[in-house]
Amino acid sequence: MSFDYRRVFRSAIREVAAEKRYRVFAELERMAGQFPKARHHAEAGPREITIWCSNDYLGMGQHPKVMEAFQETAARMGVGAGGTRNISGTSHPLVGLEAELADLHGKDAALVFTSGFISNEASISTIARLIPDCLILSDALNHSSMIEGVRRSGCEKKIFRHNDVGHLEDLLKAAGKERPKLIVFESVYSMDGDIGPVGRICDLAERYGAMTYIDEVHAVGMYGPRGGGIAERDGEMGRIDVIEGTLAKAFGCLGGYIAASTDIVDAVRSFAPGFIFTTALPPAVAAAATASIRHLKASTAERESQQRQATRTKDVLSRRGLPVMPSVTHIVPVLVGDAELCKAASDRLMDRHHIYIQPINYPTVPRGTERLRITPTPFHGDQLIDTLAGALCETWDALGIPYADTGRAAAAE
Amino acid sequence: MSFDYRRVFRSAIREVAAEKRYRVFAELERMAGQFPKARHHAEAGPREITIWCSNDYLGMGQHPKVMEAFQETAARMGVGAGGTRNISGTSHPLVGLEAELADLHGKDAALVFTSGFISNEASISTIARLIPDCLILSDALNHSSMIEGVRRSGCEKKIFRHNDVGHLEDLLKAAGKERPKLIVFESVYSMDGDIGPVGRICDLAERYGAMTYIDEVHAVGMYGPRGGGIAERDGEMGRIDVIEGTLAKAFGCLGGYIAASTDIVDAVRSFAPGFIFTTALPPAVAAAATASIRHLKASTAERESQQRQATRTKDVLSRRGLPVMPSVTHIVPVLVGDAELCKAASDRLMDRHHIYIQPINYPTVPRGTERLRITPTPFHGDQLIDTLAGALCETWDALGIPYADTGRAAAAE
Repeated sequence: MSFDYRRVFRSAIREVAAEKRYRVFAELERMAGQFPKARHHAEAGPREITIWCSNDYLGMGQHPKVMEAFQETAARMGVGAGGTRNISGTSHPLVGLEAELADLHGKDAALVFTSGFISNEASISTIARLIPDCLILSDALNHSSMIEGVRRSGCEKKIFRHNDVGHLEDLLKAAGKERPKLIVFESVYSMDGDIGPVGRICDLAERYGAMTYIDEVHAVGMYGPRGGGIAERDGEMGRIDVIEGTLAKAFGCLGGYIAASTDIVDAVRSFAPGFIFTTALPPAVAAAATASIRHLKASTAERESQQRQATRTKDVLSRRGLPVMPSVTHIVPVLVGDAELCKAASDRLMDRHHIYIQPINYPTVPRGTERLRITPTPFHGDQLIDTLAGALCETWDALGIPYADTGRAAAAE
Repeated sequence: MSFDYRRVFRSAIREVAAEKRYRVFAELERMAGQFPKARHHAEAGPREITIWCSNDYLGMGQHPKVMEAFQETAARMGVGAGGTRNISGTSHPLVGLEAELADLHGKDAALVFTSGFISNEASISTIARLIPDCLILSDALNHSSMIEGVRRSGCEKKIFRHNDVGHLEDLLKAAGKERPKLIVFESVYSMDGDIGPVGRICDLAERYGAMTYIDEVHAVGMYGPRGGGIAERDGEMGRIDVIEGTLAKAFGCLGGYIAASTDIVDAVRSFAPGFIFTTALPPAVAAAATASIRHLKASTAERESQQRQATRTKDVLSRRGLPVMPSVTHIVPVLVGDAELCKAASDRLMDRHHIYIQPINYPTVPRGTERLRITPTPFHGDQLIDTLAGALCETWDALGIPYADTGRAAAAE
């Protein structure tokens, strides 16, 4: 009897379903010029909805300058890049994009990947592998892509408690000053909306002779005078060895990148299989991302408006007693605390209220902290916020989801 | 004294340079409508060149239908997808693309990734990890992305000699019929241009109860009556469990995919971090890829013309005594056999003849088999082939690169 492969996959899926974390993807048609409205292709036919969970945080994916750069470059150069970076895929717009990113972060050089996931995985693993006997110190809440990079490096790793610089210092001290060490952490943690202590981590890195690698994917474009991220806002960019970011969130396009010294970029470029053996980003995507970065370097209107609408959303929801989790950023997580209820709330919001907020369940967040993660953009006006608050309360009432207790609500504000 | 990190990266780069395999990327501006001509941004200023090493094998990146789908969708929906597949990134065109791919390969379902690299890495590792005590049988010349997938699965693996079904059978027999086994292999091996024995591998898989995973990235769009690849050409698609392909080569766009049963696709979709935590492809890219696949399902003109021009290129080069390596596909590798000479030949072709062929050195191919890898497309007309032959001979003479000995040249033809 040979092995029954089908049973393996079926039972794995059944397990996911039993844990109420089987994912059903909402099929959407975005409508340029009408963001955050979109057409949802539901079973009963298409209908217009409001997206409240987009990572196109500033709506730049539909900005006229970004769309024009995309269209104009495609008309001139066609669609695909035609090869890996080394084999005919290095386009003029892509070289320009890397120069723009190096400038954004005040570094010598930058390197673009096809996704933020692969930029973390490839860069962390390659950098750590090149350093003899490297010890990696990794924040407990780092993103999956960073964890994969750490794992793949094959290096020894120690996990420090989330944002706990005391714990990090203990681990650095125990490792000794001579041993090479790489600290990997994020600036904005996207599920809770809290921020890493960038300056204090840099202090420790200098004191104990460690390299620093920061993931700013949820911060680039949105923080700092030119959109360089939290490290720019805090005046710490020059003290970070490697800044990793994305082109797919605030910049509204696709792809990931690192910015660092020439030596580091050249080493990752030369040794990372995930970079070497991948077709380059299309020239049109590179040109669109460049236009987006340039615009956000000069314009602060989008950042200010996003912060204003995020603050208003937190205020309005909290005042209605909804359990807004504490967040110091543009991210507004609302606690549900149960996978099935979280999914039911999301379904009800979509079906009854035409509001789309994806449920966030395990493994993206720990069990018991299932939530709706709301991301207000500059295009979510006051009226939409008020409508959202009403729809959430109706849903909370109908499904019996707990409101914040008063103490908690006050603390959250 | 703390550790000197900079020295590590510098010396790693110095080592690569000492081995004559430091990569310098050619900066190109493709020109839609004039493929394979492009503008090369050299130090001395831009100049027009002919690309002879593109993986846009059929020139579909500039096909009017592909460009129109790209432009039209971007105008309607903007640039980026705005989120991961699960969080607002599943666009209507992307769902359509997956249906198109499932149909192309005669499978229940398909799943799109942002690159072929990540589709192999994520799918192989996820599938093998879900199968208890899985033994992976992997062809010795499998692509880097497949090797990464195998490594990451954490499963036991055995390497069988390239395309050697006898060796594969020995390994299958030794493992026993009961043990779950996954055979991973390619159809077209892109550096040598040879083809895997798909049917005989399927025979063995059935006899010994193994699952089959084939990489068809260098074959989809180009082989088979509808462009389904070598497995379609050979009538073997139905016997393969997982077909992996790319949208970035013959289809002229960006991204990778698998096509398989609903259960397998659903399992990879649900468990692979490299799928779950990555922003989806832009809707415009999905629409362009769909247009390209649809066109190549119905039209055989591009495939026939590519085969004709590839055959003619091999003939003309062989008749001039150039060491064309044996290849049964559209790929025309010409042996140089030395990393430094290979780079010098490429440089001379570009500088003197305005012909761009990237040198292929270790680790992409084994040392001693360094080569120029030429990829004729339907757009490389007879005149361009003759010009190429002349330029190669001038280069071979000037640099003293060995021609084929007569026996070898005859064998290659």
